[in-house]
Amino acid sequence: MSVNHRRAWFSLVVEDPLSNILIKDATIVTMNREDRVIRRGYVRIEEDRIVEVGRASGLKGGGAELVLDGKGQALLPGLISGHTHSGLTLLRGFGEGLDPDKLWETWLWPYERSLRGKDSYASAQLTCLELIKSGVTCFADMHFNMESVAQAVRDSGLRASLSVAMMDSEAAPTTADRSTRENEELVRRWHGKAEGRISCMFGPCTVRTASRELFLKAREMADRYGVGLHIHLSETSRDVQHTVGRYGVRPVKYLHSLGILGDDVLAAHCVHLDREETELLKQSRTNPIHNPSCNAKTGVGMAPVAEMLAKGINVGLGLDAAVCNDSLDMFREMKVGCLLQSVAEGRSYGGILATEALRMCTVNNALALGFGDSIGSVEVGKKADLILVDLVQPHMTPLVWGQTSNLVSNLVYSATGRDVTTVIVDGTMLMRERIVSSLDERAVVEKAGETLERVLSRAGLKP
Amino acid sequence: MSVNHRRAWFSLVVEDPLSNILIKDATIVTMNREDRVIRRGYVRIEEDRIVEVGRASGLKGGGAELVLDGKGQALLPGLISGHTHSGLTLLRGFGEGLDPDKLWETWLWPYERSLRGKDSYASAQLTCLELIKSGVTCFADMHFNMESVAQAVRDSGLRASLSVAMMDSEAAPTTADRSTRENEELVRRWHGKAEGRISCMFGPCTVRTASRELFLKAREMADRYGVGLHIHLSETSRDVQHTVGRYGVRPVKYLHSLGILGDDVLAAHCVHLDREETELLKQSRTNPIHNPSCNAKTGVGMAPVAEMLAKGINVGLGLDAAVCNDSLDMFREMKVGCLLQSVAEGRSYGGILATEALRMCTVNNALALGFGDSIGSVEVGKKADLILVDLVQPHMTPLVWGQTSNLVSNLVYSATGRDVTTVIVDGTMLMRERIVSSLDERAVVEKAGETLERVLSRAGLKP
Repeated sequence: MSVNHRRAWFSLVVEDPLSNILIKDATIVTMNREDRVIRRGYVRIEEDRIVEVGRASGLKGGGAELVLDGKGQALLPGLISGHTHSGLTLLRGFGEGLDPDKLWETWLWPYERSLRGKDSYASAQLTCLELIKSGVTCFADMHFNMESVAQAVRDSGLRASLSVAMMDSEAAPTTADRSTRENEELVRRWHGKAEGRISCMFGPCTVRTASRELFLKAREMADRYGVGLHIHLSETSRDVQHTVGRYGVRPVKYLHSLGILGDDVLAAHCVHLDREETELLKQSRTNPIHNPSCNAKTGVGMAPVAEMLAKGINVGLGLDAAVCNDSLDMFREMKVGCLLQSVAEGRSYGGILATEALRMCTVNNALALGFGDSIGSVEVGKKADLILVDLVQPHMTPLVWGQTSNLVSNLVYSATGRDVTTVIVDGTMLMRERIVSSLDERAVVEKAGETLERVLSRAGLKP
Repeated sequence: MSVNHRRAWFSLVVEDPLSNILIKDATIVTMNREDRVIRRGYVRIEEDRIVEVGRASGLKGGGAELVLDGKGQALLPGLISGHTHSGLTLLRGFGEGLDPDKLWETWLWPYERSLRGKDSYASAQLTCLELIKSGVTCFADMHFNMESVAQAVRDSGLRASLSVAMMDSEAAPTTADRSTRENEELVRRWHGKAEGRISCMFGPCTVRTASRELFLKAREMADRYGVGLHIHLSETSRDVQHTVGRYGVRPVKYLHSLGILGDDVLAAHCVHLDREETELLKQSRTNPIHNPSCNAKTGVGMAPVAEMLAKGINVGLGLDAAVCNDSLDMFREMKVGCLLQSVAEGRSYGGILATEALRMCTVNNALALGFGDSIGSVEVGKKADLILVDLVQPHMTPLVWGQTSNLVSNLVYSATGRDVTTVIVDGTMLMRERIVSSLDERAVVEKAGETLERVLSRAGLKP
């Protein structure tokens, strides 16, 4: 269903739900600078913006064309994934027990070589559906066939920052010329499109797969087009060994010396850092994106998140690929992130506090993706990217109010994406009472299975 | 609603659903010795037992009084939690960021001292409700006021193994005499009761809080009554230091020398083990219960699960207390367990494979709780403790069938307890289409909140 069809679908219910929505009596977790929580509050949306946020007692003026009862629900800014590969969602659950190199050789490279545009569309549609159903309203994505991914994002109603995986290593399923051209086309055609919901970056993949020249080219073009960079950085110890072996310095120092790093860079992983590198990330205002589930499953180590946060580095949180995360649910990711950091730090009850985890996937990710002014919190003037989470459930009981509250702890440690009831992006309702309006759930799920079979058969792969 | 009322409630729908249920066209994950998966199979239940398991093509004979369509669903043995404290569920989300000792002093001891029977009943009811809703059909529980917990378990329709936290240290909220008497009464009154769904153990809590005499007394009584022991073992490095300081040997060796260990012992945690201790656990056939979320959150370290499994030790999986796990969902616990072990091992894609995680919370836990012959797998002659999991969902798509399948990976890494649609315990339907029949969900949730407020107020605690 296209966005226009979706709007028509909703207009069967109320006359013009998009221009004016009032959400009443919700517990608002604003994620503003003061981490303000409004226990019984309201939010008014006009067109794509939040125009009022306040206590229920202060609500003035009439209702709205669409009034949502937020009683028993938390209203949050939509969650953001700082690092995703929507083209790999079709490989969910593959290759458990395989060494990553083996996984890549056996499944990923052949799969990627056989992946056509409409396959990427199907994989991205499945991704968008899963993200909407778990309360993710925006994501940073990097892969191939990004034109198709952009179409899927446009049709889903989500917000995203898209980039092409730029590579020129021998094993890569693409080349410097091809990936540079594709990324430039993507930027030209899609940056600022889909009512402004899609923006673009350049995606020099990683120091191991993209040459010095390709990184420099990507930086130059990013500057020319006024967009950012989405890269992988120091994910494995072998990444570090490779860079030291080839360039004589560690990856962060190497990229910094090339002038690649900066506040417009999304740097996925940043697991293996020495003290100097952490300092360089801070000085350059680079945005590390932590991907705890994938890093744990692939056994690459754990990023020093608590240390980076303490230094004031803007660390975000990402889902990475379904092929190694297996569930694209930022609520689950927050819990895993907190638990793993507690282990890494050997510190009890939180190397990352629940509030910090929530900040990582809202305000921090918004800033990292270049949307700091427009999304990431529930504040007047920001885009209406909002979710409602059902709190009246056994696994979030009791809910305690006093000098402190366990509300945020319950959201981070107890909730899952399945507790999200309502998703609004850019002022448009994408899910209500868990019914997604922009996508035909059954059709997307069926097409995903058929598509994977076709790709595997084309690649000569047998599960 | 009592069990009898519930039966009456169901008999409004069909004449006698309890005597004869047929589940058709489900994907059966049997968890038998061969890990057999039947892609399109059926299970027939008569009274409390599984009487037929087979391929749909082999289904003979008429229907049944209740026929469930399992299409698009996985049928699994109900999951089992090997270590739980249902009396602490009311403290969910408390004390984040506090050192464990501080958490205990500030919240747990005062809470426990103020906890009366009906408070424990409310906390256990909330626990049972959450467990049913996430597909847990049996749990091992240890706390105070276990008479009230037993009543809650009986009324919920679940299966459980219950024990009293036996302690005689100075700080403990009980004494040797009192806890011994209470545990003996519990065994006398409840072992084998509630249509056989409740069994009991003795619960000498931990080497730090229970003296040599109390451990010996518990062992002697367990032998006299023919029941097992439920203990905490080597959870923290301080536990080890304490035992070495006081008894000159490490905890496992100490308890082994007293004759405490054996195949009837549930030993929660077993995080800090040396090689000799691992060997003693194996020789004595003691059952370690791994509690990954709680161990991670409290930062105590990680149990050497992969090593123990490789040695052939029967390791189970537990949820531990909601106060430090925050969600009583064995599906989420399996994923966290796998991810943490991958980190502990520094091994990619699985220190614990998905199948092993599923085995830990089905057959391994069944054996650990002393129910190895009656539950833990979908096999003829076993009790009908079964769950159905909805597979046709974006976050479990695609589902691939070939020489291998990603089914078990999707169940362990992608599913959550929210995907469970149907729960049957002892042949009785406790949940259907996510409606719990044995408990009034809204009332249980409301009562939990009121009860916590009352207990905190009685204890002079302010959140």
